[in-house]
Amino acid sequence: MRTRLSTEQRREQLLTIGAGLFANRPYDEVWIEEVAEIAEVSRGLLYHYFPTKRDFFAEIVRAERDRLLRLSAPDKSVSHVDQLTIGLDVYLDYAQHHPDGYRVIHRAAAAGDAEIREIRDAGQAANRERILAGLADLATVDATTKLAVRGWFTFVTAITLDWLDNPAVTREDLRDLCVRTLFAAVGITPPD
Amino acid sequence: MRTRLSTEQRREQLLTIGAGLFANRPYDEVWIEEVAEIAEVSRGLLYHYFPTKRDFFAEIVRAERDRLLRLSAPDKSVSHVDQLTIGLDVYLDYAQHHPDGYRVIHRAAAAGDAEIREIRDAGQAANRERILAGLADLATVDATTKLAVRGWFTFVTAITLDWLDNPAVTREDLRDLCVRTLFAAVGITPPD
Repeated sequence: MRTRLSTEQRREQLLTIGAGLFANRPYDEVWIEEVAEIAEVSRGLLYHYFPTKRDFFAEIVRAERDRLLRLSAPDKSVSHVDQLTIGLDVYLDYAQHHPDGYRVIHRAAAAGDAEIREIRDAGQAANRERILAGLADLATVDATTKLAVRGWFTFVTAITLDWLDNPAVTREDLRDLCVRTLFAAVGITPPD
Repeated sequence: MRTRLSTEQRREQLLTIGAGLFANRPYDEVWIEEVAEIAEVSRGLLYHYFPTKRDFFAEIVRAERDRLLRLSAPDKSVSHVDQLTIGLDVYLDYAQHHPDGYRVIHRAAAAGDAEIREIRDAGQAANRERILAGLADLATVDATTKLAVRGWFTFVTAITLDWLDNPAVTREDLRDLCVRTLFAAVGITPPD
């Protein structure tokens, strides 16, 4: 007997299955009918939720982005260094345990799709605002600070993708590398 | 009267004109016949040098990459910090005075073209080897160092592209940001 899911649960199930399929195959080699098979629903139901493959793909990227933003929300009750460290731990833990979900976001943006890139960039912008708000407590935020933080996000993304493909260092080493690089880039010595 | 150019001079002229055209227009909106018009040569001659638009584009990216590598070769007679600082000055000067040439390399790679990406990545690999060879004089190069240097190149590229579109900081500030970020990322305090 099939499990009865609510509309929202079904939608999330389809997105999760889709994220898994898109993550390790080129876009053109994924047939979304396979999602219906895995979920044991009709193709008609799948198309009811997501009219086209493009729509489906964009919704996956959006859902994965929002999931990561929720998971990495800062805990304002601890020091700024700890906020960053904990945030990165959560972020890298997500990447490590959901490599497909992580890759799907960045592969999509790299593929040059304007809609997908916009979804990814909006997520990075939200994260940048978090970091800049924290740094503003410690020092003056100027144009160089903003440029440094933008570049740092690219740095973190690049080394995380590298590390997923070739985990030659521990997650703790990777996190510490990210922490010290941010503070050096913005030219701030964090308080103990 | 037309200027008589050698085969090599003509080839370089066509590549330079092409780099300018491709840099500020999407690939699909460039007609290489325009290159023949600007160079005042026949289309037949252009096709003799570059049989297809794709060939032409790939050769532009390769030529711009090699030009930048030559311009930024390290001067081993000065300190490591000075080598990096001078190398970055040359690099950022190139980017500032040849924004189209700089963008054309990275737009091409971002567009997901495997050949173009390979040309760009080979250039970045050559630059990474230079940096790692310099760092090996100062400290032990391990997996974290290599990951940090890979990420740093992404950082430099991202903030340079940002800065070209929005030059809100001086070139010196941008260069100093790159220098301090590299040494912090690899965890090395450079000797004075």
